[in-house]
Amino acid sequence: MTKGPAAPGRGSSVEMPEARGKGQVFGAGAEEVAGSGSFFRSRWVTPPSGFEELEPTALAPGFRASGVACGLKGGGGTDVGLLACEAADVGSALLLTRNAAPAAPVIVCRDECDAGAIRAVVVNSGNANAATGEQGYRDALAMRDAAAAALGLEGPHVAVAETGTIGVPLRVGDVLRGVDDAAGRLAEDAAGFSEAIMTTDRGPKRCALRTDGVTLSAQAKGAGMIEPGFATMLCFVQTDAALDDPEALLRGAVAASFERITVDGQLSTNDTVLLQATGESGRPLPQGLLEAALLQLALEIVADGEGASRTARVVVSEASTPEEAERVARAIANSPLVKTALYGRDPNWGRVAQAAGMALAGEEVPELGPERIDAAELGSDVPEAELAIRLGRGEAGAHVFFSDLTNDYVELNAEYTT
Amino acid sequence: MTKGPAAPGRGSSVEMPEARGKGQVFGAGAEEVAGSGSFFRSRWVTPPSGFEELEPTALAPGFRASGVACGLKGGGGTDVGLLACEAADVGSALLLTRNAAPAAPVIVCRDECDAGAIRAVVVNSGNANAATGEQGYRDALAMRDAAAAALGLEGPHVAVAETGTIGVPLRVGDVLRGVDDAAGRLAEDAAGFSEAIMTTDRGPKRCALRTDGVTLSAQAKGAGMIEPGFATMLCFVQTDAALDDPEALLRGAVAASFERITVDGQLSTNDTVLLQATGESGRPLPQGLLEAALLQLALEIVADGEGASRTARVVVSEASTPEEAERVARAIANSPLVKTALYGRDPNWGRVAQAAGMALAGEEVPELGPERIDAAELGSDVPEAELAIRLGRGEAGAHVFFSDLTNDYVELNAEYTT
Repeated sequence: MTKGPAAPGRGSSVEMPEARGKGQVFGAGAEEVAGSGSFFRSRWVTPPSGFEELEPTALAPGFRASGVACGLKGGGGTDVGLLACEAADVGSALLLTRNAAPAAPVIVCRDECDAGAIRAVVVNSGNANAATGEQGYRDALAMRDAAAAALGLEGPHVAVAETGTIGVPLRVGDVLRGVDDAAGRLAEDAAGFSEAIMTTDRGPKRCALRTDGVTLSAQAKGAGMIEPGFATMLCFVQTDAALDDPEALLRGAVAASFERITVDGQLSTNDTVLLQATGESGRPLPQGLLEAALLQLALEIVADGEGASRTARVVVSEASTPEEAERVARAIANSPLVKTALYGRDPNWGRVAQAAGMALAGEEVPELGPERIDAAELGSDVPEAELAIRLGRGEAGAHVFFSDLTNDYVELNAEYTT
Repeated sequence: MTKGPAAPGRGSSVEMPEARGKGQVFGAGAEEVAGSGSFFRSRWVTPPSGFEELEPTALAPGFRASGVACGLKGGGGTDVGLLACEAADVGSALLLTRNAAPAAPVIVCRDECDAGAIRAVVVNSGNANAATGEQGYRDALAMRDAAAAALGLEGPHVAVAETGTIGVPLRVGDVLRGVDDAAGRLAEDAAGFSEAIMTTDRGPKRCALRTDGVTLSAQAKGAGMIEPGFATMLCFVQTDAALDDPEALLRGAVAASFERITVDGQLSTNDTVLLQATGESGRPLPQGLLEAALLQLALEIVADGEGASRTARVVVSEASTPEEAERVARAIANSPLVKTALYGRDPNWGRVAQAAGMALAGEEVPELGPERIDAAELGSDVPEAELAIRLGRGEAGAHVFFSDLTNDYVELNAEYTT
């Protein structure tokens, strides 16, 4: 265990641009970096006060997990994961993609699960089971039911998630054998589970943190098809905290983390975020703990974006409305011209002005010149670059984290199938 | 002069998806290709009936043009163009970008020109004079006034257009000397003019056509920062036809051509389309002539998209509303996953389903499986690939032309400044 740095006097885990005052986007705090070697590596995350960092593969008390290989991935990689809660009580929240072409497991979660009382989740990687029709639905349901049977649970208490290629029939027989195998290997460790959910990820994304007598563990995956409508990718969070309203808590934390990132502007068909809480610690969730963990995991997804070499945050201020600020921030974050400038270390504020002007087409806007745009860090070597634009139209703001666009993104997506 | 192929029985120059019937996107006519060596190279353009093709650098009667080098471009390339009408009367229409951060020449055109009575236009390439503040505005106005003085015209009858790097002060002294030089070299030929407006274009885009006693000539440029809000890039069109309402005519033709293309989803700060008509032929514009010319020029811009190796058309049908069809078509055309699939010859209909589902987030949509999506040509070697999706929600349709996303796009935009 390592003792993480405290962040005295900070109530929120997220550096919101509003908190810094207009025109002071690069103010105190922006350069803070959590202790090296710590989970909290990003300048943009304020760790919760006085937290302890457990082994990243640890699980909150009451949870067990496993990961096995069933053959969906080439090379024998683990591709079926199972996670189950064995505490007396469990409350949960389950958020799903808003894509109008949702994958079969998303439909099963939506229509066949009790989102507030999820005890277990079964996951496969290698096949998204999306756009697979009635058979795909039956396969996802069979997978969910097999996990429920193996764990002695009722179907509605088990969620299912899948990630990988779209439009390919699931080899469900292999997956069902994998589910049985995984059920026999559950252990108090998320190492296998966090690897079994990976696709094009460079490595697992996971953490286990303790503060104020509460433990929180989480495992996430994601690298491409990343622009959250509410969230993106898969993320599973476990805690022994006692939560009054898990859904409201999760929605708030996701709004400030997974909803703030983009890799390629593509809302996935399979996004799923699950929070499970046993309440066994008898304590509430410490302020900022969930938010900081999800924000760091979200930033790891951006940094691990397909082909990505650098991460940036664009901070839009002085917008007329929050919606306008958001629209401008996303237009900049998703502009291939801005993303290639980030890659090429070109402090090209003109491309930022063009993207903002596109998002504001038809509006009266003060000239968006260099006095309103700070793009200096685009041209620097900092891995996490700050970019700021003041629109001069009002008081609202928004920020979005994004990755650069590189040759590796093109090669990865031209040469391999999704 | 070469005699182009006639297209008997066709009233419209544009293959609209509606005309083909639902589910028959690849029906008769789609494989038609105009005679090889002809200007009308695209399968998606129906040439006007019985047209003659003049030398592509020819100008409609009454127009003269020139192009000179003033030093904005490296290597001595031509970078100042002048085009003037010397007929007794001239009517015109001038369409400008809707980007809320318009370049200085766009502001000059909007505020200081008589859009219906433009006699001449002066253009420079190498510097977009965008996001250049008050000084940029004064420079664009000086450029316009210098052209007016050299030609003996009133300022409001001269338009100005610029294209190139954003955010860099214009070396206006060089440009003004270039304008004087260009005024002394006007000739009945658009060769120099069509080259002087190029930036990252691989070659000039131009045509001269005659049918029913009317001549129409046009010159265009464009390769990046291409997603029209109404149009994109620069395009200048001259004719001796007699037009009742040049603006309505131009808006209609642009809606079916430049508004239907995307390279990188980026609405430019500088888009300008000018149509000038002398009426000296005493005849109306033959049906389909302007539409076919602008559509072919628009498709040349797509084919010449930065780094582009292939072009595609996505045809969306069975949408609830035209706006919905348009939104889905643009989501697919701008998806980096679809664009890299086009590059990689991957018939990946799953990525098409995902992009459509993103555009329809929150809506009830029939499953978007392979029975609704024809992506076979993505995986083929045809330079112009057809892609079709039927949404099963209504009767509306839309189509968008787009280019692929390649390593060359990334390299061009990472290594060079806009």
